Amino acid sequence: MGHHFRVLAQDPHSKARYGILETPHGSIETPVFMPVGTQGTVKAVAPDRLKALGVQIFLCNAYHLHLRPGEELVREAGGLHRFISWDGALLTDSGGFQVFSLAQLVRVDDEGVSFRSHLDGSLHRFTPENTMQIQEALGADIVMPLDECVGFPASVERERRAAERTIRWARRCREVFSGRGQLLFGIIQGGVTKDLRQFCAKKIVEIGFDGYAIGGLSVGEPKPLMYEIIEVVEPLLPEDKPRYLMGVGSPESIIEAVLRGIDMFDCVLPTRNARNACLFTSRGRMNIDRQEFARDFRSPDPECTCYTCQNFSRAYLRHLFKAGEILAAELATIHNLAFMVKLMADVRRALQEGYFSEFAREFLSLYKAKG
Amino acid sequence: MGHHFRVLAQDPHSKARYGILETPHGSIETPVFMPVGTQGTVKAVAPDRLKALGVQIFLCNAYHLHLRPGEELVREAGGLHRFISWDGALLTDSGGFQVFSLAQLVRVDDEGVSFRSHLDGSLHRFTPENTMQIQEALGADIVMPLDECVGFPASVERERRAAERTIRWARRCREVFSGRGQLLFGIIQGGVTKDLRQFCAKKIVEIGFDGYAIGGLSVGEPKPLMYEIIEVVEPLLPEDKPRYLMGVGSPESIIEAVLRGIDMFDCVLPTRNARNACLFTSRGRMNIDRQEFARDFRSPDPECTCYTCQNFSRAYLRHLFKAGEILAAELATIHNLAFMVKLMADVRRALQEGYFSEFAREFLSLYKAKG
Repeated sequence: MGHHFRVLAQDPHSKARYGILETPHGSIETPVFMPVGTQGTVKAVAPDRLKALGVQIFLCNAYHLHLRPGEELVREAGGLHRFISWDGALLTDSGGFQVFSLAQLVRVDDEGVSFRSHLDGSLHRFTPENTMQIQEALGADIVMPLDECVGFPASVERERRAAERTIRWARRCREVFSGRGQLLFGIIQGGVTKDLRQFCAKKIVEIGFDGYAIGGLSVGEPKPLMYEIIEVVEPLLPEDKPRYLMGVGSPESIIEAVLRGIDMFDCVLPTRNARNACLFTSRGRMNIDRQEFARDFRSPDPECTCYTCQNFSRAYLRHLFKAGEILAAELATIHNLAFMVKLMADVRRALQEGYFSEFAREFLSLYKAKG
Repeated sequence: MGHHFRVLAQDPHSKARYGILETPHGSIETPVFMPVGTQGTVKAVAPDRLKALGVQIFLCNAYHLHLRPGEELVREAGGLHRFISWDGALLTDSGGFQVFSLAQLVRVDDEGVSFRSHLDGSLHRFTPENTMQIQEALGADIVMPLDECVGFPASVERERRAAERTIRWARRCREVFSGRGQLLFGIIQGGVTKDLRQFCAKKIVEIGFDGYAIGGLSVGEPKPLMYEIIEVVEPLLPEDKPRYLMGVGSPESIIEAVLRGIDMFDCVLPTRNARNACLFTSRGRMNIDRQEFARDFRSPDPECTCYTCQNFSRAYLRHLFKAGEILAAELATIHNLAFMVKLMADVRRALQEGYFSEFAREFLSLYKAKG
């Protein structure tokens, strides 16, 4: 494990920090939001636009790419970056989350997990070892170990078994991980039981990874409980490694988690909401297909400088959604990603210039009032 | 009627010519292919990309925009160019073709045509006068009069009645057309009956328009018959006005029609085919979602310099189509439009440099052999 991460500014009033994570495909400034490109494309937006928007890194799902087109095909193509034409950084998850949510679970045992594809019902098996091989074939910059996810609510016993198995699987992933040109993060499970989270965090840190992810949150538990879990886990994580809160992406949750020391986020929310005509704006969320926007010729978000807001009106976006035009999805996604990129750039500048606590307080009070 | 069109080069061996058409939104070099942006967007491609591709002008459908969002809304938005954020030239058709093909026809009489919307069954009426008003509100650079279209085959009597009505309607359109900042083309009908086509052409030319369109072709008749109709109409058209063959867009038909003196074309084919995974390439058509391309990591068209061909492989495009990703439609449409833009640029250069007959002969023999 080399030194890939440097904390360059620490907020004096919170756990928040500004840092730089070095990857084989460039340096990433943190805190960072990673859009989701499930099947090897951030839905509706071509990679040249992602680059122009300032997206530094996005996530692809090893589960989906394993099923289609298959990791060996991607390897033959020269790896995921080349296959999808993205020269920035990429992260793949192990597929654990999808197996426990999207697929039809067949059996989980200590060896691994058997499941049926959500596409065609075909039988597949993930083990800690083969998920490392799959992700090595895909070739993302950051890869994740296989973990066992429990939903919310779950019994403490269920949480404990999953956390213990996640630790055993993490150790096996760590052992077979080749380390060539990739970073491996550890995942902390343990549901909403604090001592279980702490136990899991200690064990995962003992194994030693390039970064630490908190998994199994944002699965239906109350937000305050999610923040409490972050608060008990964070002090156990080494300061010189990045911390990644998996599956979290609403603007207010990101700010709350940055305050608690988190550096990385991913979520389908900005892109999925966009395709459902829901825009994130500096004035709160806006369902752009509503009747009230039919003759509203103002920019979707007058404070935004993205291609969409600089060139198109609310009325036109509404027309595109009503008419079922593909361009609706692209323009809305461009805007929501621009919003997230700018939010994170603002967060980082506030951290670098020492006013993050005020920034966070103001953002949260304004965003809650509007949202 | 001013002098908006200049023929700058004439092929010595055919009727083909190179020209420039001046519009309120810039000069258009002809022969030109106009993509179709039915509802105010060329499906799946944002206007900045169209511009970058070299698209000079595209077509929107007055029928669709009248039904949704309505021409008054577009006028309030500042006109179609501003509404859709396109500063190049635009053409709107009158809606005649859609009324006779897409809508449920209620009644046609000399006064106009009543029809039910294909969207919600609501009753509407087009007259020569209101289609001019609708298109004036939309504000395209080139507008078209209401015409009556018959399919193929149709009785000569049916063709005759439609041609005569088209002439009467053309006269009424010409009378109410304000001429402020727009060009008005005439449309020649007459089915596949040559003397009827000639009769209609003479009458439409007598009325006098900024350009002349041949409508009602490419509706199922054999290709040789279509070329014969062009051949009998063309000598009756003034040389100093552009000629537009409506609804034609396959590469081979365009070359054949340019040889016969046509300057402008529109068709949904390149964009619709793209969304159905069918690429136009210099080696013929390619159904990119076929199994044979699963591990084909070559550029879709190695001779193409478009964004798609410069950055993505056949295998990736196939993956996107198989996975149902929106990006598939965008990347395929970008390529097919790039193909059409380059084809027309090659045609124009050949005309300017005097080798169009050879160019056409070579293109047709190669394209037929491959296609």
